[in-house]
Formats: sequence, structure tokens, C-alpha cells
Amino acid sequence: MPGADTLYRASTTAPVNIAVIKYWGKRDTALNLPTNSSLSVTLSQKSLRTHTTASCSESFSGPDSLVLNGEEEDIQLSKRTQACLKHLRSLREQLESKDASLPKLSKMTLRLVSANNFPTAAGLASSAAGFAALVRAIADLYELPQSPEELSLIARQGSGSACRSLMGGFVAWRAGTKDDGSDSIAEEVAPVSHWPEMRALILVVSAEKKGVPSTAGMQTTVETSTLAKARFREIVPQRMREMEKAIQDKDFEAFARITMQDSNSFHAICLDSWPPIHYLNDVSRAAMNAVETANRKAGKLICAYTFDAGPNAVIYYLEEHTHQVAGVIKNILPHIPGWEGEFGQNVRPNEYGGLEAKVLMTLKSGISRVICTGVGGGPVKIEKHLVDEIGEAVSPGGS
Amino acid sequence: MPGADTLYRASTTAPVNIAVIKYWGKRDTALNLPTNSSLSVTLSQKSLRTHTTASCSESFSGPDSLVLNGEEEDIQLSKRTQACLKHLRSLREQLESKDASLPKLSKMTLRLVSANNFPTAAGLASSAAGFAALVRAIADLYELPQSPEELSLIARQGSGSACRSLMGGFVAWRAGTKDDGSDSIAEEVAPVSHWPEMRALILVVSAEKKGVPSTAGMQTTVETSTLAKARFREIVPQRMREMEKAIQDKDFEAFARITMQDSNSFHAICLDSWPPIHYLNDVSRAAMNAVETANRKAGKLICAYTFDAGPNAVIYYLEEHTHQVAGVIKNILPHIPGWEGEFGQNVRPNEYGGLEAKVLMTLKSGISRVICTGVGGGPVKIEKHLVDEIGEAVSPGGS
Repeated sequence: MPGADTLYRASTTAPVNIAVIKYWGKRDTALNLPTNSSLSVTLSQKSLRTHTTASCSESFSGPDSLVLNGEEEDIQLSKRTQACLKHLRSLREQLESKDASLPKLSKMTLRLVSANNFPTAAGLASSAAGFAALVRAIADLYELPQSPEELSLIARQGSGSACRSLMGGFVAWRAGTKDDGSDSIAEEVAPVSHWPEMRALILVVSAEKKGVPSTAGMQTTVETSTLAKARFREIVPQRMREMEKAIQDKDFEAFARITMQDSNSFHAICLDSWPPIHYLNDVSRAAMNAVETANRKAGKLICAYTFDAGPNAVIYYLEEHTHQVAGVIKNILPHIPGWEGEFGQNVRPNEYGGLEAKVLMTLKSGISRVICTGVGGGPVKIEKHLVDEIGEAVSPGGS
Repeated sequence: MPGADTLYRASTTAPVNIAVIKYWGKRDTALNLPTNSSLSVTLSQKSLRTHTTASCSESFSGPDSLVLNGEEEDIQLSKRTQACLKHLRSLREQLESKDASLPKLSKMTLRLVSANNFPTAAGLASSAAGFAALVRAIADLYELPQSPEELSLIARQGSGSACRSLMGGFVAWRAGTKDDGSDSIAEEVAPVSHWPEMRALILVVSAEKKGVPSTAGMQTTVETSTLAKARFREIVPQRMREMEKAIQDKDFEAFARITMQDSNSFHAICLDSWPPIHYLNDVSRAAMNAVETANRKAGKLICAYTFDAGPNAVIYYLEEHTHQVAGVIKNILPHIPGWEGEFGQNVRPNEYGGLEAKVLMTLKSGISRVICTGVGGGPVKIEKHLVDEIGEAVSPGGS
């Protein structure tokens, strides 16, 4: 029989995902229900991950707490975090009400500790991995029977794109049509094993003033862009079908074209918003030019750019074209951080002939680091905890 | 009775126009029929004009010729120029067939001489003023009774936007619906005298590689942009109505908002094209930021940016806000050419507080000249000829 000071812990790591069909616009801001479906590639946790430990104990007192990257966060004021915790607790309560022998974890204070293995300076939105890890860790702590799809509905309330980080490989987030959001969930379109050759090279643009935050920006677009309606209603639904087929068929050229077109479509409706929203800058456009040049040299589409709500480029390519894609970038930017690690260390620098001098100069001066990675799996339960045996947060050092 | 060596001459100057509702896309490429109506402000010929002399004589032999800025152009190969000449000759023939006493100018070789008073380096599309001057000068030479609206149909075949340079003030080009283009003509929405306080400040961005030519670019958009259809069918028709009302009401805030939104909409469908088309760069975005800053400081819209198929910004404002708009730019860029002349010389430099350091630096390093001008009238018949009494081209020096 567990005592009052019994500590319950569960830990998970969760991945970052980068959309190839973009989420931009909510039809319900409280529930994070999107105006359109989206689709992403889950990135390998060898490169980027959030590590989260959820713990609870009868001996914990006070409100639930979260330590993120060593800093105490005020989650009491975060409606999104509270929505996730409330939903997870209610699922635990259901279990406890059916089986009286279960410890009443739902009544205990939660201590959550989370750490990203990538610097905030990398300019990557960490909220997707963060909420996915949070939901997954608590679901494990509570021993919930819910599937990743069912949990995605909870993570979505924390951060829309977080729902896509609960699975690996290629993940669709179905917009759904119901007002309560019960059909707005993520599902795996294909696992990592279907197309493990997919690579992603992130070009991190040197510190730039932070642009319009995505939550505010996407609502500006919904309210003011006259072009966005066509994107939400017609263009994305058709692209989702085409993209799923491209993935099923492992048709990289179709995958690449749709990825680039959808990124451009997203930034087009940003520009069409009032006031207009700009995320792409001259460095972003130089990266687009480098991708176009590599494709022209290859005589087919061997790489694809995509941009989220910022200037960083994410370039997708297949392992077989590493030399022609990552190799060229490594030759241009050999001395910036990010080439170490499994995916990057064996990239051989390749000549960049054909690139205009101005594009070259813009890339050299504008990119501060790369992240060389690939498609990866969903959250992983691990035994390394960020809460020690007496319930104190520990440093994630080397997580 | 005129002899075989009688020389017939007529000269005109014609203005540049800058659209506030953009023309981008043809529904018929041979006839230059647009996918949507557009609306422009005719700019003062004190600043920018094309001067053209049309001449003919029985003594002239060989094919029609055009000397443009001192260089012989091969107009035999220009279908667009030939279409204009053919149309104008047929109108002259109609006159001659009705009145046998008229000299048979339609049978004579045309010598055309044309010169712009602005350098090509200014990065302004000169084809609108050029074809407007060509058509107006030949129509005067032939003493055609056609109205500017009727002539606009001819100029349109030379260069779409040229039809809007046949009138002054605020000019609409009606897209029309007929297959033969007979209803695709320009008309004056309001004369200069209706709103003479309208000013335009052009910021010419330092030499940049020429982007995608507009003729090719607009067809790429028509064929590939999934967002463009909504612009052509719904968004521009509504904006045309709103813009005409704003002009009738002299409502500068509405004029400014629609101008900026339509420029952004146009560049959005360029970005949404495949391959994507970029005309805006970081200097363009710094100019947008400066306009937004001036409007924020004023607490209302006192200026509006618009961009054609290139990075140059055109900023519209009213004379009463010269100090807050042109004054700020003059203080940032006091030493670049373009402040001389009627509109610019009396602009007093004004403090630019509130502009971010990076925006300021981008403007200082990225803009090579300004053109400070305002709304102006349509083509003017003048007695200064670019063909001398013996039919030779003369230098336009000081035209």
C-alpha cells in the first residue's frame, strides 16, 4: 500500500514537427480549432526534443507547478495549460471511479519539469513539442488508456500544432467540423518506417527582431485577408489529398512542389492581411533561391523549402540527395554550429556553382546555425526523470 | 496644295501613371485584355513625361521607324507597336475615304521620335507613357476625332497600362467582358482639379537585378496562383467600387487603406505563383514600415505605399501632410538626387523619431534617388518637335 509520501513519476520525450501543409487560422480560438487541416513531418528526437517529467504525490502541496528549462513558469494564468491539466485529470478520475484500488492521483498536486535540448536562440517554436511532452507524460503518469489520437485532442488545446507531435512520421491534423472540437485530432498518415530517408535541414537566420506572434497573426489573417477564404475552403483541402497521396506513393517531387506552394500560399495570406504580416526576409528569399538552384541543377525537384512564422528555412530532401542539398549548404556555411551529430557529420561539402554571388553573400552573412536532421518517431517513454526521488526538480544536464 | 516633300508633324507629351488598384493578369494576351479592372493616378509631367513627335511625308521611304531616346528601335518586329499603327492608320483611312481633299497621310511612312525625361535607371516602367504618347501624337498628326477613351483602346494594345496614361487625374481601366476588347477602355474617374493636393513620392531602390518581367510574370500568376481567382473575380471588383467612392469623396484614409491592401494583394498572388515571384525586398519592407510609422504617429492614415513589379516604393500623401511624410524621408535621405523641382525643393526635413534603427539603416543604404511629384493632367499637344523641318530626328535636349 503506497504511503502519503509515495512519489509517482513518468517521463517522456517528444519531438518537434514542421508542417508541409500549414496551420494558419483558428475557427475557434478557445478550443484551438483550425480553419483548415494541416500535415507535418515529425523530426528526429536525436536532434530536437523536449524532455518532460510529470510527478505527483500526496505530500506535494499547493498548486500545480511547471519548471521549464530551469525556470518556474506561472501556469495558473495559462488557460491553455489549465485546459490540458483539467482534461487529463478528468480522464484519470474516470479510471479511479471505476477501480477503487487505484491511487487517487487526480487529487494530487502535479509537479512538472520540462527541458528542451535546443536553445531558444534556434528560433524554433517549442510549444508543439512542449505540450505534446506534457500531455504524454501526464497520460503515462495517470496510466490513461487513451490512444495518441485521443490525446492529440488534449494537446491541441495547449497549442494547436502540438497535436501533431504526439505521433511520428507523417502526421495529419484533421480540422474537423464539430463545434466542440471532438473531431479535430491528429492521425498518422504514414510511420517513419514508410519513408525513413526523409531529411530536414533547418537554416537558422541570425537574430532578427521577433515578428508578429503567430497566435495574434493568424487571427489578423482570418479577420482581414480577402484571399484567405479560398485557401481555407478550397486550396488546402485539395492539397491535403494530393500531399497524402504523394506521401503514400513516396513521390518526392510532388511532396516538394506541394510543400513549397503551401508555404508560399501561407506567406501570401500573411502579406494580404491588414496590417500585413511579414515573416520572410532577404535571407529567407536567398534560401529559396538556393533550393531553386539545386533543383534546376538536378533537373528535378530534389529539395523543398518551407517557412513557419519566422525567417528560418526548413529544407526537406531525401537521404540520397544529401550531397546535392546539405553538401552545398555545408560548403557555403562550413563553420557555423549544427553540422555535428548523426545526420550532419558525414555530409561532405559540395561545390555551389550556379548560385548568384548576391545569394551566396546573403546566406553567408545571414545564417547563424543549422540543424541537420530527419524524420523521426513520436514521443518515447523514458526512465530518466527530471524530478528526483524526493520530488525536487533536477537539472536536465545532458538529457 | 501640299507638295511631295510636305512634312506633317505633331508632338505630344504623355504622363506616367501609378496604379492604386493593380493590373496583374491578362485574359487575352494578344489584345492585352486584363483579368480585372484597375485604377491609377496620373503623375505630373513636370516630373516625368515622354515626349513624342509623329511625322510623315510622301518623301519618306521605307518602313515606319521609331527613334527612342536617341536609339533606332526595330518596330517591325514589335507586334504591339504594329497593332497600334495599323489601328490608327485605319482610322485615318476612314477620314480620307470620306473627304477626298484630305492628304493621304495613311499611305505615308511614319517617322516617330520619342524621348523620356527620366533615366531608365529610375526603374520606372516607361512603356505606359511611351505608348500613350505614341498613340496621342499619331492621332493628332492624323487629326483623328476619336476621344481619349476611344484612343485608350488602341494604346492598350501597345501596353495594357498605357491606356490609363491618355487621361489625367484619376483613371479607371475597365476590364470589359467582350472577346474583341472593345469595352476594355480607360476613363477618367476624376480630373486633377478634383483632388489636386494628391502627392506621390517615389523611392527608387538601388540597382537590383531586374526581377521577372511583368508580361511573363502576370501570366505565370494567371496560370498557377490558386489564390488569384478570388482576386480577379471578387476582391478587385469590390475594391474598384470602394476606391472610386474614396476618390469622389476625397476620403484619403479610405484611399490609403485600399491602395496599400491592393498592393499587398498583388504581391501576395505573385508569391503564390509557381515558381513564386518576388518583387519586394528588405528595402521595400523598410519603406512599408516607414509609412506605417508615419501613420501611427499621425493617429490616422496620412500616407500609403504601393509597389509595382519591382522594389521601388511609391508613397501617396496629401499636400497638407508633406512635412510628416516627404519631410521625414528628406531628413533620412537629404543628399540623394530628386529633391529639386517644384514638388520637392520646398520640403523641409522633419525628424524621424520612432523609426527603428534597422529600418533607418536599410532606407539609408538602399535608396538611390527619389522622385517627388503629384497628380497631373493627361497628354499635352506641344509645338516643340523632335523631327526637324527636313524630317530628321533631333536631340530632345532639354525637352
